[in-house]
Amino acid sequence: MKQKKINVRQPTLIVDKERLIANISRMLAKTAKSNTILRPHFKTHQNISVGKVFSSLGIDKITVSSFSMSRQFRKAMWKDITVAFPLNISELSEIDGRNSQSRKVSILIEAPAVMRHVELAIPKWNLSEVSFFIEIDTGYKRSGVYYSDIKMIDEILEIAKSNSKFAFKGFLTHSGHTYKAKSKDEIIAIWEDTVSKMTDLKNRYIEQYPQLIISLGDTPSCSIVESFEGVDEIRPGNFAYYDLMQEQLGSCVFDDIAVVVACSVVGLYPERNEVVIYGGAVHLSKEYLETGDGKIYGKVVELDYTGKWEKAIEGCYVKSMSQEHGVLHVPDQAMQLFDYGKIVGIVPVHSCLTANLHRKIKLRDKKNTS
Amino acid sequence: MKQKKINVRQPTLIVDKERLIANISRMLAKTAKSNTILRPHFKTHQNISVGKVFSSLGIDKITVSSFSMSRQFRKAMWKDITVAFPLNISELSEIDGRNSQSRKVSILIEAPAVMRHVELAIPKWNLSEVSFFIEIDTGYKRSGVYYSDIKMIDEILEIAKSNSKFAFKGFLTHSGHTYKAKSKDEIIAIWEDTVSKMTDLKNRYIEQYPQLIISLGDTPSCSIVESFEGVDEIRPGNFAYYDLMQEQLGSCVFDDIAVVVACSVVGLYPERNEVVIYGGAVHLSKEYLETGDGKIYGKVVELDYTGKWEKAIEGCYVKSMSQEHGVLHVPDQAMQLFDYGKIVGIVPVHSCLTANLHRKIKLRDKKNTS
Repeated sequence: MKQKKINVRQPTLIVDKERLIANISRMLAKTAKSNTILRPHFKTHQNISVGKVFSSLGIDKITVSSFSMSRQFRKAMWKDITVAFPLNISELSEIDGRNSQSRKVSILIEAPAVMRHVELAIPKWNLSEVSFFIEIDTGYKRSGVYYSDIKMIDEILEIAKSNSKFAFKGFLTHSGHTYKAKSKDEIIAIWEDTVSKMTDLKNRYIEQYPQLIISLGDTPSCSIVESFEGVDEIRPGNFAYYDLMQEQLGSCVFDDIAVVVACSVVGLYPERNEVVIYGGAVHLSKEYLETGDGKIYGKVVELDYTGKWEKAIEGCYVKSMSQEHGVLHVPDQAMQLFDYGKIVGIVPVHSCLTANLHRKIKLRDKKNTS
Repeated sequence: MKQKKINVRQPTLIVDKERLIANISRMLAKTAKSNTILRPHFKTHQNISVGKVFSSLGIDKITVSSFSMSRQFRKAMWKDITVAFPLNISELSEIDGRNSQSRKVSILIEAPAVMRHVELAIPKWNLSEVSFFIEIDTGYKRSGVYYSDIKMIDEILEIAKSNSKFAFKGFLTHSGHTYKAKSKDEIIAIWEDTVSKMTDLKNRYIEQYPQLIISLGDTPSCSIVESFEGVDEIRPGNFAYYDLMQEQLGSCVFDDIAVVVACSVVGLYPERNEVVIYGGAVHLSKEYLETGDGKIYGKVVELDYTGKWEKAIEGCYVKSMSQEHGVLHVPDQAMQLFDYGKIVGIVPVHSCLTANLHRKIKLRDKKNTS
């Protein structure tokens, strides 16, 4: 079986299908033990082919962060979608017609005022159900009803009673403060605190709403905690690709990272230990990591002719970027690895932002034949 | 005459045509005095409609930073294009067929090794001329032949003599170190140093190549210096839109900035002086400014129903972002300006990276009628 040779001319996102499958399978195995639903966040890849890989592993429920992503994946026949973003009343009309017997889209409510806008619009719509979660803030302080604000939760649920089309699905939260944690223990502590607060809410409302679930779980905590016991649903996204930020947080090891941006070498400056690649802020994003070497925008790997990579080139990193140029720091001993036209892989700092910049990707499959 | 009402549901880049025209006209007037060619860099907007505004002001020569942009604008009938990026030999085939009697594309060479690749490819191509600039590094140290490396320049020109299809256009540089300058005086000093080094090169080679020109000029220096005397061509890009970074550098005033991203308010948190908008890193980019308030990712303006804006809301700024969420800091006295569904404008830190995230734009024209 001959492997397909990659052909890269412009900066191209390569997704390693083997690593992708391993990452998804590992998370699935952990959810299976506690009977937790894995509803992966598709904002990380926003890609139909990658979606099919999830689907081939038995996943049929997904999360997105916008109605436009929801439209994209509905067209690709995904039928059970949560739009995990505070409902934008400028897009109210997106709710209409999004539901049918075969399609289920849930929205996120975090304010009575917004709920009233939906209430007023329902009679104009031709749909059977408006499924909604109440977004809860357990301490991240980005969006959501503060977990202890029972008055506001009751106010939202009161409005829901006004129309039988409202279907309350449960409480949803995103504990994004794990991204600022300094250790695995801190991430585990945030997870435990979140589960405890969400469980309290569940216990308070379960008699009234016997179907309600709690939905939580960002990539760092879902990757690090050992068990999802007591949690109905998790929604990590980044875990499918991972990246340098997740490696730094301890969510993954370097070998788990499933994406690189393949870039051509266009300039060699051995006198200042630099190499310039065609690959800049519009291909990688300006997300950076603080490291012992200062700010870095990516690490560098060699790619074989099929696009496969292994360990990072030691001492090599993306030290600065402009719109289309990436400047690599290259130590003396690595300089001979670079030449004009050579294609190298850049391992991104934040794969969600990098993937967002690539509409087309190469899904690298070891079974591909040329 | 009734003005068109803007209709914004998702984060949308609004370009104010009046400000755009004023910015271009100001630069054109300055180039006219010294008989300098304005070859604007279209990487900033990458947009056909915005290109037409330039064209309506008499501009017919442009700069781009990739062959894909070159293709895009050739399709839109732009005939004289410089691809101001070190030639990527993985894209050599892009050179073939790009030239014809009616189309002129110039490439950038900064290494004899790359020039040899072109030399070897020419016999396979069906084109009449390969126009090239030699890229010069006058001190920015990103790419280009170091200005004093006459040996390398001669080596490139020697290869050019091997094939009569090579047409040497001149020396080109980008003094991007102006972006790190701490004062207008420092920017002017960089400009003067650049002009002096480029003029020395011109003088050295002009007898041998009487048609050669020098091409330089980034947005900070082109905006700040009073005269382009002695410079054949300038290539600023950002000056058409400007942004907060340029305001901080002194290239423009706030009222010159011609772009905002219109975003819906989706969350109100007066207790922590915060508002959340639908508008995050995938709509604005992660570029930030260091200010007295810490890192900021944008300023905030009110938009009238036509999408027009004036001054920034005092004390208000984008304090953090995730993929789709933007978190605004809002002082007490400004809180009443915000409500669910309200559309506000975010003035970007770096308009090139922001514009790159928006394929569709709204070109706000006061002459539009509804």
